[in-house]
Parts: sequence; C-alpha cells; structure tokens
Amino acid sequence: MTHQHSGYVRSLAERARAASLAIASLDDAGRAGLLSAMADAVDAGRAGILKANESDMARVHDNGTTGAMLDRLKLDDGRIDGIVAAIREVAALPDPVGQVTRRETRPNGLVVEKVRIPLGLIAMIYEARPNVTADAAALCLRAGNAVLLRGGSEARDSNIAIARCLHRALADHGLPAEAVALVEDTAREHVLELLQLTDLVDLAIPRGGERLIRFVAENARVPVIKHYKGVCHLYVDRAADPALALRLAIDGKLSRPGVCNSLETMLVHADIAEGWLPEALSELQARGAEIRGCDRTRALFPAAAPASEDDYAAEFLAPILAVRVVDSIDEAIGHIQRHTSDHTEVICSTDPAAIDRFVREIRSSAVVVNASSRFNDGGELGLGAEIGISTTRLHAYGPMGLESLTIERYVVRGDGQARHADVPKQSQAA
Amino acid sequence: MTHQHSGYVRSLAERARAASLAIASLDDAGRAGLLSAMADAVDAGRAGILKANESDMARVHDNGTTGAMLDRLKLDDGRIDGIVAAIREVAALPDPVGQVTRRETRPNGLVVEKVRIPLGLIAMIYEARPNVTADAAALCLRAGNAVLLRGGSEARDSNIAIARCLHRALADHGLPAEAVALVEDTAREHVLELLQLTDLVDLAIPRGGERLIRFVAENARVPVIKHYKGVCHLYVDRAADPALALRLAIDGKLSRPGVCNSLETMLVHADIAEGWLPEALSELQARGAEIRGCDRTRALFPAAAPASEDDYAAEFLAPILAVRVVDSIDEAIGHIQRHTSDHTEVICSTDPAAIDRFVREIRSSAVVVNASSRFNDGGELGLGAEIGISTTRLHAYGPMGLESLTIERYVVRGDGQARHADVPKQSQAA
Repeated sequence: MTHQHSGYVRSLAERARAASLAIASLDDAGRAGLLSAMADAVDAGRAGILKANESDMARVHDNGTTGAMLDRLKLDDGRIDGIVAAIREVAALPDPVGQVTRRETRPNGLVVEKVRIPLGLIAMIYEARPNVTADAAALCLRAGNAVLLRGGSEARDSNIAIARCLHRALADHGLPAEAVALVEDTAREHVLELLQLTDLVDLAIPRGGERLIRFVAENARVPVIKHYKGVCHLYVDRAADPALALRLAIDGKLSRPGVCNSLETMLVHADIAEGWLPEALSELQARGAEIRGCDRTRALFPAAAPASEDDYAAEFLAPILAVRVVDSIDEAIGHIQRHTSDHTEVICSTDPAAIDRFVREIRSSAVVVNASSRFNDGGELGLGAEIGISTTRLHAYGPMGLESLTIERYVVRGDGQARHADVPKQSQAA
Repeated sequence: MTHQHSGYVRSLAERARAASLAIASLDDAGRAGLLSAMADAVDAGRAGILKANESDMARVHDNGTTGAMLDRLKLDDGRIDGIVAAIREVAALPDPVGQVTRRETRPNGLVVEKVRIPLGLIAMIYEARPNVTADAAALCLRAGNAVLLRGGSEARDSNIAIARCLHRALADHGLPAEAVALVEDTAREHVLELLQLTDLVDLAIPRGGERLIRFVAENARVPVIKHYKGVCHLYVDRAADPALALRLAIDGKLSRPGVCNSLETMLVHADIAEGWLPEALSELQARGAEIRGCDRTRALFPAAAPASEDDYAAEFLAPILAVRVVDSIDEAIGHIQRHTSDHTEVICSTDPAAIDRFVREIRSSAVVVNASSRFNDGGELGLGAEIGISTTRLHAYGPMGLESLTIERYVVRGDGQARHADVPKQSQAA
C-alpha cells in the first residue's frame, strides 16, 4: 500500500464540506432547479458518458470479468434515459429541509420547534453501477447536502464522465463543483482515509455486496448506515388464506430472486401444512423454485431436498426456498428472531390476534401483513426514491428516502427568557 | 491488561438482549408500572444504597481524590429522593412505543405506516455519578429497551446497590434481571469488549468528561451518539435590544458556568459595540466574569485580557467569556461555523431578516433566538427528561428524550398485493 496520496481525500472532503454550506443555503426552488439542470447536463453529455463507459467495459472485459458485473457496468441510451428520468423524479419530490416536525409553546413563553436541516456531507461508497453516481448526488443535494462519491474502479471513467456533467450544472448555478466530489483515484487507501474523517463526513453509506459493506463497517470511524443482507421470511399462519399465501410465496421468491427483499425462508403452521403445503410447493417447483425443507416438509413433499441449519440463515440470491413446518406462531416468531437480518418479514393470516402479535414482536425494518415482501422498497412505500435500505436500527430503518438525509434540530424563539431569577430585566446598560 | 474475563461482557450482553424482547413486549401500562416499582424499590432500599455509597466514598477518599469528584459521587437522603422522583417522572411520560408517525394508503391499496419500536439494547458508559444508573435504566426501559450499564469504578458499590433494587422490581414483575445489566467488574478491557459487540448492542451513549467520550468514540464498533463539549456562542446583532442582550449574556455565562449549555464566546456587531459593550462587560465583570477580548473589544473595555485563538475554541467550564467585535452578521456566522461544537448558538436581534439568516445558516443542534443558551436542555425544551445531548448529526441531535431511544419502522398491510402481474389471484391450491 502506498501513502503517496495521503491527504488527497481529506483535502477533497474539506472542499466538499465547505460546498455543503452553499447547497444548504439554497431554497426549495433553487435545489429543484439545480437538479433539473443536472438532468439536462447528463442528457446533453450522453455521448461523452457512453464513450467513457465503452472504455470501462473494454478494460474490464480484458481483465476477464464475468457477465453479471459487465451487465451492471454497462450503459446505453436507455439506461442514460433512466438516469436522467431518475434525477428529474428526485427534483420533483417534496423538500424535506425546513419541515417543522414539532412545535410547542412552553409555560415560560418559549416557542420550541424541531426543524429538518441537511446532515452536511454524505459519503457514498459503491461498486460497479455507474448510475449510483447520479442517483446519490441527486438525492443528497435535493436534501441540502454535499456528497463525496467513491465508486468502483471498474466504472472509473463512466463515473468521471457523469460527475463532469453534474459539475457543469453546478457551475451554471454559480455553485462549487465539490458539492459532488468524486474520489477519482480508486486506490483502496483512499477509502480507508475517507472512513476516518470524523470531523468532515457526517454519514457514510456503503452500497454493494456484503464484502464491501463489511469492509466499510469494520474500518469506519465515521457513522455508517448499512444493510448486509436480506433474509426475508414468510410465515403462513394456521388462519392463512391458502390462495393468498401461495401468491405471496410465488411473488416473494420468484419475481426477482436476486434482490434483498425477496423471500428466503417460508415457515408454515402445522395445522395448514397438510392441506396446503404439497400443492403450494409443487406450484413453486413448477415455476422454477428449488425447495429445501425440514423433515416434516419432506414428509409432505418428498421432492424437497433436506434443509441444513445454514439454509435457514442464507440469502440465496437465487430461486431457492427454505421451508419449515412450525407448531405455533411462537415457534415461527422464535425462528425469525434467531435468523432475522432485520430486513422484511411477512405474515399471511386472517386472524387479527396472530397479526397483532407478529407485528408487535418482530422488530425488522418492515413487517408486512398479507402482501409480498417485495414491497419493502422506497418507491413502493411512497418515499419517491431511496438511497438504500437500512437494517441498522438507528437514524433510519428500512428504505431511506430524502428525509433520512436530514436531521431534526431545535429552533427556540423567546423574548428575553433566562434560567436564573437573579438576572436583571432592565439594567444600567439599557 | 488481563484477558481472564474475556467473554464476560458478551455473555451479559446476550442475556440483556434476550431480556430486551421481554421489555419490548410489555404495553404502556406494564412499563409504567414497572418503573413505579423501580422507584419504590430504590426508596425502600435506601439504607443499603447509602451504606454502599459510604464504602465508595471512603475508598475514593483514601485514594486522595479531589472535592468535585467526591461531590459527584456522594449520595444522601435528598439525592436518593431525587433519584426516586426522577424515575417516577419518567414513568409518567407519554409512551413513544407504538406511535404511528406516518400513515399513507398507496394506489394499490397497501396501507403503509411508520411505527415507533424500541432500539433494543442500549449501552451507557458513564463516570462517577451513581444517579445515572437509575436514570438511564428508567429512560431505556420506559422506551422498551434493555440497558447495559458500565459506571465508573469509583461508584462501583453504589451502582451495584442501586441495580439490586431495580432487579427486585423486575423480579416482582416476572421480568429478567438482565434487562438492567450492570457490568460489575469495572476493568477497562470490559469496556473495550462491550464496544465491539455489534451483533448485540444497538447504541452506546457515553456520558462524562471529554476523555471518556473520546475513548468510547475511538474504540467503538457499535454506533455511538456523543457530545464532546459545548462551545456556545451569543451573537449580539446591530439590531439587538441592549437590555435583553445583557440579560442573555449574564444568564448564559454566569448562571451555571460548569455546564455544557453555558456561553463561551460573545460576538458583538461593531455598530452596537461602542454604545453597549463597555457597560455590558463592566456588569459581567462586576458579577464575576473574566473577560478575554479581541483588540477592538479591549479598545472599548481596557480591563479585558487579550483573547488568543485558543480562547475562541475553548469550553472554559468557568466564568470566563471570550468576546469579539465583528463587522457584520456574515462575519459572526463565519466565526461560528469555524468554531462551533454543534451545541447551542444564540442570536439577540429585533431584525427578522438577521434572525432568519442566522437560523438558516447555523447548523447547531439548537439555535436560540432572544433567549438564553441555558434552555438547551431536555426538561426545558419539553422532553420531560433527557439521557444526554447529542452533537452527532445523526439519529438524534440536541437533547435526547424517550423518542431518541426508539426507531421508526414500516408496517405494511395489504390484501394479497404482489409486485408481479404473473402471479395467480386464484390457484389450484386454493
């Protein structure tokens, strides 16, 4: 590891932090206008972005990288349209900054408000998808923050080209380019340096595979909001509607198995298992699911492979479903409490008492009743756009929208209130 | 450093985390009743607590400790009355758990709610004041959490005696004692172990001197909310009411100089300085303040000592006031942005434009208009009680009450919604 660039990231972060004050001082219309200009600039700069992306693709291809990574890296006109549209959507979202979330007049006449302000400087550390460069910049700036971006080395040229477009929009608004500060040198020691900047970086958000997130979490001195993985459960209660339960299992497991809000484990109450499980698992298998079950599952559905304890902790990211028959809702809740990743858990039931208990005792970021786990997503839950899904039970828990990029602080207005009776109301200085 | 106790804190934290589920499953009345019983138990156990405290006092006295530490450590009947009353106050506070902070019906019929749940397990790391043992336990449990307490070695016997009382109340309610888990062995390696337990501890809150807080911040892998110090500013605008400005200076600096929300620096607009500053500083000096000023301050008030750059960064914790004359509100805001500890800043002005600008551009946890900095306190701002004042711009910023010990998560209720059109509404399994 070379330290020849030591101080490079600090210097960039200092300028980004100074730029955050300029972004924070814009009003709603100013920030929305800036984002529209950013969308226009990406649109107008697409030829340069596509050329840079071709160079990234060629380099990565020569290194013998696999198909999934190449697909994540690739940009084309359609994907650039998507980036432009995403920035415009964020521009149109309601402004969280300045929202008054509480107001109270105290007995002494003080008016106490809680008011949202930006966090300050947010660092995003991400992997191959170059669209994150624009998405993260749009969300952070819309909420009044500056952003420090460190993308993957594979997407280096694409990220630089996108950042250049964003910088043009900032310059046209008389704003410092460092409000969107890209760490162009992707050497790993710069990430380590970035993660130590407790006086400059208010929050770091890693976005990517479990290895990246673990690296950030284990090396950061700055606050980190993260999610490692989604091990999402569906509990099919004894009082479940059988058709509805099957629908949730199919959608949860098979509509997009590679994402974090897909199902991994299904827990089925013994009272419904005999009548429902064999046909449900046949249908899932017919649609391409691999079933791994406990002994009782396999007694009812012999085509299932045996499930190991590891299977009940796994995020398969594949059309594999672990299944277990349980004797009670207590057993289901206990299983989830042992194996939860704090992401999403679903109950399928028509029994209000069972639903209440499940909702009260499960502490995951989203508890879903009689709907698919796939709805734990910022867009689906009405946040407009998300910068990630937090499974850290602090600051934000679940999909993080614009509000998660702000903090509430106190504004206190008085007319001369003092704590001590001893202080003169009038004095000789008056 | 010995590692013979390695695993001791992990084992305690595991039991505390399990106990947190029992506390979370209580309802409002259950938790309020538990806190009343905790207050009764401390009241009934006061003889044992006082005896333990005498033993702590004797040991610390023999070690040659100074008066301020002894005063923080000492308990007497009045202070135990205070502890009992504080627990009862927390018992009477409104329950944050279960509060619905947002509710929306999506176009597809999903009902999306954000609902407050407890954080889980909160670790408190604190110094000599034994009342923190009871205060922190009451606040954490009221919000549905378990607490892992690590107090200072000086207060070891007092803390054990108080914890025993709290355990009796838990036992009487059929709840596990480990909901209030005290690290009785105060060896420092146990703090280090505690700060690594990312799978068990949801939040660590250090409470004490800057050294303790820095130690926790620098060694923690678990999330930490902290404040290092309060360098609070009063800006006396050109449009300030002179009598009101003096009142805020006296109350801010002199009503209790040893606390974090007292004033350290006063910035005075040049247009008001000549007419106001000499008499105001005379009055402050007559009341016991030591004045350290810039050259322009000293030209108007020669009795002031010269202020160094360090004085403008200092939390004096003493009746010392740094003073600086500024030519504009811009200069005042710039000074604060350079020197802020993100705690409390005050503007004294009758000019709405100046007030708006100050409130918008200052990002501290509390901005106070025409009132004393001393009001940045949970009790004064209507939170009922506080577990600390956060200057971390994440999760909670400013005084932390019960709400800060909870997190909002999503509860989503549907009637069979799936993301994919392909999923059967009715199936052969129905």
